[in-house]
Amino acid sequence: MSRLTVYAVVAAGLVYMIPTLVWGAGSEGGHGAHALTFLFMALILLAAKASSLIERFGQPSVLGELLVGVVLGNLALFGITFFEPIKTDEIIGFLAELGVVILLFQIGLESNIKEMSKVGLPAIMVAIAGVVVPFGLGVYVAGPLLMPEADMNTLLFIGAALTATSVGITARVFKDLGKLQTRESQIVLGAAVIDDVMGLIILAVVSAIVTVGSITGSAVAFIIFKAILFLGSAILIGQILAPTISLYFSKIHTGIGMKFTLAFAVGLLFAYAAAEIGLAPIIGAFAGGLILDAVVFRRFKRPDYVEELAEMEADAPAPIKGKLADIVHRYEHRHVEDLIEPVAQVFVPIFFVVTGMAVDLTTFADTTILATALGITAVAFFGKIVAGLFAGKGVNKWIVGFGMVPRGEVGLIFATIGAGLGVITGGVFSVIIIMVILTTLLTPPILTHLLRKQTS
Amino acid sequence: MSRLTVYAVVAAGLVYMIPTLVWGAGSEGGHGAHALTFLFMALILLAAKASSLIERFGQPSVLGELLVGVVLGNLALFGITFFEPIKTDEIIGFLAELGVVILLFQIGLESNIKEMSKVGLPAIMVAIAGVVVPFGLGVYVAGPLLMPEADMNTLLFIGAALTATSVGITARVFKDLGKLQTRESQIVLGAAVIDDVMGLIILAVVSAIVTVGSITGSAVAFIIFKAILFLGSAILIGQILAPTISLYFSKIHTGIGMKFTLAFAVGLLFAYAAAEIGLAPIIGAFAGGLILDAVVFRRFKRPDYVEELAEMEADAPAPIKGKLADIVHRYEHRHVEDLIEPVAQVFVPIFFVVTGMAVDLTTFADTTILATALGITAVAFFGKIVAGLFAGKGVNKWIVGFGMVPRGEVGLIFATIGAGLGVITGGVFSVIIIMVILTTLLTPPILTHLLRKQTS
Repeated sequence: MSRLTVYAVVAAGLVYMIPTLVWGAGSEGGHGAHALTFLFMALILLAAKASSLIERFGQPSVLGELLVGVVLGNLALFGITFFEPIKTDEIIGFLAELGVVILLFQIGLESNIKEMSKVGLPAIMVAIAGVVVPFGLGVYVAGPLLMPEADMNTLLFIGAALTATSVGITARVFKDLGKLQTRESQIVLGAAVIDDVMGLIILAVVSAIVTVGSITGSAVAFIIFKAILFLGSAILIGQILAPTISLYFSKIHTGIGMKFTLAFAVGLLFAYAAAEIGLAPIIGAFAGGLILDAVVFRRFKRPDYVEELAEMEADAPAPIKGKLADIVHRYEHRHVEDLIEPVAQVFVPIFFVVTGMAVDLTTFADTTILATALGITAVAFFGKIVAGLFAGKGVNKWIVGFGMVPRGEVGLIFATIGAGLGVITGGVFSVIIIMVILTTLLTPPILTHLLRKQTS
Repeated sequence: MSRLTVYAVVAAGLVYMIPTLVWGAGSEGGHGAHALTFLFMALILLAAKASSLIERFGQPSVLGELLVGVVLGNLALFGITFFEPIKTDEIIGFLAELGVVILLFQIGLESNIKEMSKVGLPAIMVAIAGVVVPFGLGVYVAGPLLMPEADMNTLLFIGAALTATSVGITARVFKDLGKLQTRESQIVLGAAVIDDVMGLIILAVVSAIVTVGSITGSAVAFIIFKAILFLGSAILIGQILAPTISLYFSKIHTGIGMKFTLAFAVGLLFAYAAAEIGLAPIIGAFAGGLILDAVVFRRFKRPDYVEELAEMEADAPAPIKGKLADIVHRYEHRHVEDLIEPVAQVFVPIFFVVTGMAVDLTTFADTTILATALGITAVAFFGKIVAGLFAGKGVNKWIVGFGMVPRGEVGLIFATIGAGLGVITGGVFSVIIIMVILTTLLTPPILTHLLRKQTS
């Protein structure tokens, strides 16, 4: 074919394909039941990656992904409704949840129980203060002041929504800036886990008060017992069972696929188990990552290049030998983390873009609601910053405090349940949504600023 | 805590958790809309990995995954209905399709256009004969003889399923036996790729006949023209656009996440585009993989360990220098393939297990169906062995012929699409599944025998 023929074919192809691709001539071969989901996935991923331009301005890429989501989710205001189906697409919704589960599993893998237990006490203190202060302020101070017409049931749910911590956003910021191993990061992660357990208790209590009118002390005690028992026994069972399961599967095959699949399945199983007990799946995934460490996989193959390097190391001369041994040591231990990374690259951005898309900019239009929301948002910030003061000595309390601020999907879940019970209606719902949006969107730049200042 | 206390807590946890996990106390916190899907994903992955025990018997692991699917899908016969919801779960269905799209994208990445064109005339001849002979025998001879009650639409789909060649299974067999570089292997791989494309044209044609009722010669010509035009122009457009898009995105960020996401998005976009034009998403994904080669990503970072090794290589003494340069060269070029591998590990097995689950064992009880399946399987072998006769001089024609026999996932896709169109029902579906399983199961030992005989 001559060059001209080639271009003619390309041009003909374009002329034929463009209308088909834009308007969708649609799936004559019985294929493509999920083709549109493939397109949405690709566009979300490309938009998310393009948004990492925001790193030029010193911001973490998670903020770019959230903002890209806000833009895509509000294009309908300009008549562009192409992306609207994403908001209600069940499969995209699942992929987003899978994304945040993978993120917390990944962070669990990079953490370990010993390090976490070192920050045990400050984490507990921060978590308790981070629940008590916002709840108290919401129910007894800011709520009655800003919304005098709200009854006690409504105030209870506003208070509950204020206690939430969405650890996904903060964890991403720490990860983007390479600060996951700092003491501040460990405290925030630990506090977020405890916070989720307490949030579950609060939710059960306020739901009971709203529906039954009251709750007994023993019922509260049972909920607390159940949640703690789950977390404790899941981690203990995991630590006992994981090496055993690993042993049996390594007898079947010691390949890299087996090693990685085992790890990933543990993350999914813990996410499921947490959800079954009423906790967030991400908390389970984090616990699953936490119990897995290199020793669990010691019977499995190392990556091909590590094997090659180990072989070379055997007869290398002195200085090279040391360097090779070092590379072998570092990369064989990083292996499961390296394998989960590409999977995270594909799914984690979907969560943040979809979260951004849930922001409805028209809620900001009503100035009365906006004013109330700004007041509640101030309380939301203040309550968690106060909690940060309990982080103990030797850490930057502001980083811990702001790290606890984002309410994210957890705050939304509380609002949604309140709406389902009929105590969170129209305007109040918008107030909570705006609070969630602002705490979620404003935290990454603030946290980035604080972390950079600390380093310099 | 004493050891005893720990075990007591674990025991209490187990006693409490087991009924909860089995019967589902369920999601009090409003979480876990997708928890059950996480559980199913984990169980499918673990079952798939456990099934790789089948490799001990010289069988490819894909067969283990299919058989595990057959088992899970038929446990209801023994009163265990736990896995039944997987069959109709829309999200699991999507994940399975994503899995096969990723598989074909991966195979596309590992192929390249130059190598394919080198295979030349024998591969084209084998591919054409491998499509014409089984299709002709299926539609006009064995089909009408063995299934006199089947109408033309059904026969067309049986014929189409007989034309399939599974690239993955074929390549895997040669790879396991260390014979990938033989002339026989090259011909089989090239022919299998061409066969896939022809099979998909056949699929488009038979699908049109089934859905529209009839098809004119000009419509067939148009489908062929459209398919070739799509593939040709997609590949050309991709080859022109991919480096440009890659250039712009590399200006935003040169990290590994960007590199991998770009590659993955290309696979998804091609899958979407193919579906929109009426082709299978997998052929689009394959084409997407085909156009991406190392040069597209030359502006992006190499893996960390490759950077380290390249640095070491600079001042290494002679023999070490050469070895390091070799490792650097091999692993930097394999990078996108290495990154897609863990993603494939997570999703590809879902496709095969879910496909196996579609097998209804109760149809095996029907000796008529079983006899028919054995007849169709004989035709499946015979048609491809005849195709091997066109492999030209200087090669073992039997190896080429048997190398083309496995129908694998492509045959299953044809059957599934036929089922979706309502022309492949109960018994006929089982006939095709049995044929696929037998061609996949019997080929590796035969091929092993032939290859060992050739070497000795």
